[in-house]
Amino acid sequence: MVQLDLQTQLRINAERLQASLLELAKIGATQKGGVCRLALTDMDQQGRHWVINKAKSLGLSVSVDQIGNTFMRRAGRSAHLPPVMTGSHIDTVRTGGRFDGNLGVLAGLEVIETLMTAGLQPARPIAVGVFTNEEGARFQPDMLGALVYVGGLSLETALDTIAIDGAVLGDELQRIGYDGSAPCPSVPPHAFVELHIEQGPRLEAEGVQIGAVTGVQGISWQEVTIMGQSNHAGTTPMSLRHDPAYIAAEITVFLRQIAQEYGGNQVCTVGKIDVQPNLINVVPKSATLTLDVRNTDENILQEVELKIAQKIKELSETEGVRVSSKVLARFEPVQFDERLIDLVETLAKTHNRSVMRMPSGAGHDAQMLARVCPTSMIFTPSVEGISHNPAEFTSTDDLVAGANILLDAMWTLAHLDLPHLDIALQNGSK
Amino acid sequence: MVQLDLQTQLRINAERLQASLLELAKIGATQKGGVCRLALTDMDQQGRHWVINKAKSLGLSVSVDQIGNTFMRRAGRSAHLPPVMTGSHIDTVRTGGRFDGNLGVLAGLEVIETLMTAGLQPARPIAVGVFTNEEGARFQPDMLGALVYVGGLSLETALDTIAIDGAVLGDELQRIGYDGSAPCPSVPPHAFVELHIEQGPRLEAEGVQIGAVTGVQGISWQEVTIMGQSNHAGTTPMSLRHDPAYIAAEITVFLRQIAQEYGGNQVCTVGKIDVQPNLINVVPKSATLTLDVRNTDENILQEVELKIAQKIKELSETEGVRVSSKVLARFEPVQFDERLIDLVETLAKTHNRSVMRMPSGAGHDAQMLARVCPTSMIFTPSVEGISHNPAEFTSTDDLVAGANILLDAMWTLAHLDLPHLDIALQNGSK
Repeated sequence: MVQLDLQTQLRINAERLQASLLELAKIGATQKGGVCRLALTDMDQQGRHWVINKAKSLGLSVSVDQIGNTFMRRAGRSAHLPPVMTGSHIDTVRTGGRFDGNLGVLAGLEVIETLMTAGLQPARPIAVGVFTNEEGARFQPDMLGALVYVGGLSLETALDTIAIDGAVLGDELQRIGYDGSAPCPSVPPHAFVELHIEQGPRLEAEGVQIGAVTGVQGISWQEVTIMGQSNHAGTTPMSLRHDPAYIAAEITVFLRQIAQEYGGNQVCTVGKIDVQPNLINVVPKSATLTLDVRNTDENILQEVELKIAQKIKELSETEGVRVSSKVLARFEPVQFDERLIDLVETLAKTHNRSVMRMPSGAGHDAQMLARVCPTSMIFTPSVEGISHNPAEFTSTDDLVAGANILLDAMWTLAHLDLPHLDIALQNGSK
Repeated sequence: MVQLDLQTQLRINAERLQASLLELAKIGATQKGGVCRLALTDMDQQGRHWVINKAKSLGLSVSVDQIGNTFMRRAGRSAHLPPVMTGSHIDTVRTGGRFDGNLGVLAGLEVIETLMTAGLQPARPIAVGVFTNEEGARFQPDMLGALVYVGGLSLETALDTIAIDGAVLGDELQRIGYDGSAPCPSVPPHAFVELHIEQGPRLEAEGVQIGAVTGVQGISWQEVTIMGQSNHAGTTPMSLRHDPAYIAAEITVFLRQIAQEYGGNQVCTVGKIDVQPNLINVVPKSATLTLDVRNTDENILQEVELKIAQKIKELSETEGVRVSSKVLARFEPVQFDERLIDLVETLAKTHNRSVMRMPSGAGHDAQMLARVCPTSMIFTPSVEGISHNPAEFTSTDDLVAGANILLDAMWTLAHLDLPHLDIALQNGSK
């Protein structure tokens, strides 16, 4: 599909992109060198203002939709066609870094500025989206703005969402002046490509510069509560114990084993354990632990869930404890459009960058856009895989390479035959 | 050794003992039917007053030593010989029951009252000790009063102990009026036998009515801290993880395995686990867990400690985490006097009670007394092994049987040839 003759031979301005990243990172800057810009707070408002001012200074048209998603558009020669879209988010977690989300938004603006400076106007409009509340750090669920944009959550429900600090999303949107009038959900873009830092260690570990993202892992989140019998640690023989902490440990070890057994993209994590009464000399009466299980393949994910459930049942019967499980979240894997994955992979090679296909372990706005239009993502390496942390870092060289690939991807998609992509959409590239 | 002709053929007054237990349980009674009488609080003071009033009404002489241990003595025909002693404690944990400790004190008084009612005066004095702060729930260490009594901890250090609520032990002792003048440490008793509820499930599980306690398990308490690398649960491949929660789980499973492998009296417990940051989607950066390891055999205890340390080292190297361990407590096993264990066992049989020799998994005042005089204990069954809990319960039939065996044990010891016991002491029945 990739038509290399559609490449621009242009390169983005590395210093300008770097300067934008540093400038935006001042808004909500933390003492440790990170950024705290929780969704719909005053800091988020200031960040949005800064981004929009920059877009307006480039002469882009700006629209804000009913959930606060903001779109900055460079007109195409065919003005009324759906745009090729890129973008991401500028909200952060409480201990956020400078790149997560911000890179995707600012690289999008840099792509447009590069084209404008070169006097190139694409056939289709090119738009940069800033999606509301991607992180989910203040309002649940995460990726909320993108989810409403694609019709996956009703606007009314979204506006009624209560923040962890008690605020109502709709009120906060109005308070910061981002309760826009553009309809939401809206007409799908022609295609969507998001540039993002990996937020994981795989590219660095493999020594690869670009990730051509194939999709997003499915997520299965459970909370498992084990009720046993609290007893004196000294006086209770091993054979008479019903120990929830021991069963929690067996489950934790089993999750590691099954992840290794399945290999590939299978990951399993026990990140949270709470034991009661949590005293050195008392066999606990209860233990609660969370299971985070992810795979890119829904069938395997279900198989692993089933095996875990069977193991828990076996363990509980042997030990004589009662176990209950609660599903906290369950998302099926998202598969990106094969042709857009190809496009990213091929462009990386033509830019002399090493590239690998890889799924995303984390959630992104792109996974919501994938429900309504051909979508992919470009990943750049995260040093030591660190993210959601002030120490989050990606080298300038890697950032610039990602932005240049985004530039050519946007330009290419803006000139590709449309039917191809429309058909892709009908084939269900969700 | 047992001279059955020294038995009294008397029986204690069951109703009177029950009434005493109920009356004392009113002091510090909790809404759930338990007792909260933390050491040296107003409730402890009231409890002590009640016990002493009862002793005085029997005409016993009462002395309080410098650490607040209280001794109630029935004179013997040979007034100046060291007494045969029984006793226990009346302080409780915050969620205590009605029997732990209290039984040993009140049964001691009941034994003396039974002898007096029958007009019998023993050759040696018979004393009932009430030891300060056995539980360790307010002041550390536990068994503090008995430890000072036998010279295992200096009086000065003990008086300077700070409570969990910030109070100084010496001040509290003075405040409640139990800073006595009797010297501490003091002259060892002739022998010591303590009646106590089992606080574990073994007697009930085996269908046995009396435990002839052979000693107290050695205790090894460690806190293990594991430092790993915090990472995103979705984006971090299994092969790149350094997961402290997983290692904590492996250690927990290993403790169960090694306890089962060694069998016998070996018990191992992980009762406390704390994970940071304790979030569902974050591979933890640290985990802290406690290891409670006990055995009646010091050599085996050391062997198990060593194997656990080796396993932790292996695990930490494989996973790439840093582990540090801190010893929180370490007590060698205590072996009671063989002849006193025999005495309890034989008396139980002559009272037509099923009996088994068993170690104590919990600590008791008797283990401190064993440092200075021939010592043993009588255990009565705990329903479902429950203790340190308002639901703590022992049937009246079992309590009474235990008190009757105590009666004959005290009488027997008060008339046994002394050199036997003195030699036993020199042979090191610690």
